[in-house]
Amino acid sequence: MTTQQAMQQALALADEAARMGEVPVGAVVLNGQGHVLAMARNHVEDHHDASAHAELLAMRQAARHCGTARLEGCTLVVTLEPCPMCAAAITHFRLSRVIYGAYDPKGGGVDHGPRLFARPGCLHRPGEIISGVREREAGAQLRRFFRVLRQRD
Amino acid sequence: MTTQQAMQQALALADEAARMGEVPVGAVVLNGQGHVLAMARNHVEDHHDASAHAELLAMRQAARHCGTARLEGCTLVVTLEPCPMCAAAITHFRLSRVIYGAYDPKGGGVDHGPRLFARPGCLHRPGEIISGVREREAGAQLRRFFRVLRQRD
Repeated sequence: MTTQQAMQQALALADEAARMGEVPVGAVVLNGQGHVLAMARNHVEDHHDASAHAELLAMRQAARHCGTARLEGCTLVVTLEPCPMCAAAITHFRLSRVIYGAYDPKGGGVDHGPRLFARPGCLHRPGEIISGVREREAGAQLRRFFRVLRQRD
Repeated sequence: MTTQQAMQQALALADEAARMGEVPVGAVVLNGQGHVLAMARNHVEDHHDASAHAELLAMRQAARHCGTARLEGCTLVVTLEPCPMCAAAITHFRLSRVIYGAYDPKGGGVDHGPRLFARPGCLHRPGEIISGVREREAGAQLRRFFRVLRQRD
């Protein structure tokens, strides 16, 4: 699967999340050959787990699949800029590439907030980060979700 | 259980982690009445999960136990300063208090590195943070573990 196809899949997973009342974020982990190791969407509410972000679930699933706690050579494709928790997890799992969709000025931890990979003490940073991939669609999903949520309140 | 007793328990869990070849960190989550909701030690290697830090496992377990993704009113007691991943998870789970043992100048995210709770954009910070509790013992466990590891290499 190409990274473009992986982003298409991640957007579909985000859409599924929204339909289930979860913040619409989807993630796919590819290995160095472009094979899908894992895919996940947000499950915070139905798992009763505030850490059940799409990318953390996908990384955990991919590592379990590989039988190793490290994902060197792998690519994470996710529809939203990872938060500081997920960015730090990317460091722990040692992902090689991160490709993400919408920017998250309030909650992001890669290009906003603590910018964890840019810190001098960062123990591992992905060799490549590509941001803003299909940003418009990923952002539109999120805005639509929160608009509906506000109307309900 | 008092927080002192919880730290004693967390130190025992860290000791168990070391015996199993895991970085010695232990964690306990108490509710507002001091009842134990969850306790965990590091499981990175045996779970093949780089995110299986003691405090993240304990928070997930506590939230599952409570049937809610949020842990308002709860206290996290952990033997080591939480890393940025776990500090950001503390924000997501909305813990009210954090009590930790040894400082982690290289890997910590609370009083070192990105100091996530001190950032102006932090979406939730615990009302109380007590650091350095039984620091000497918690630090000694970690130093002993890494000394043995280096001797093996």
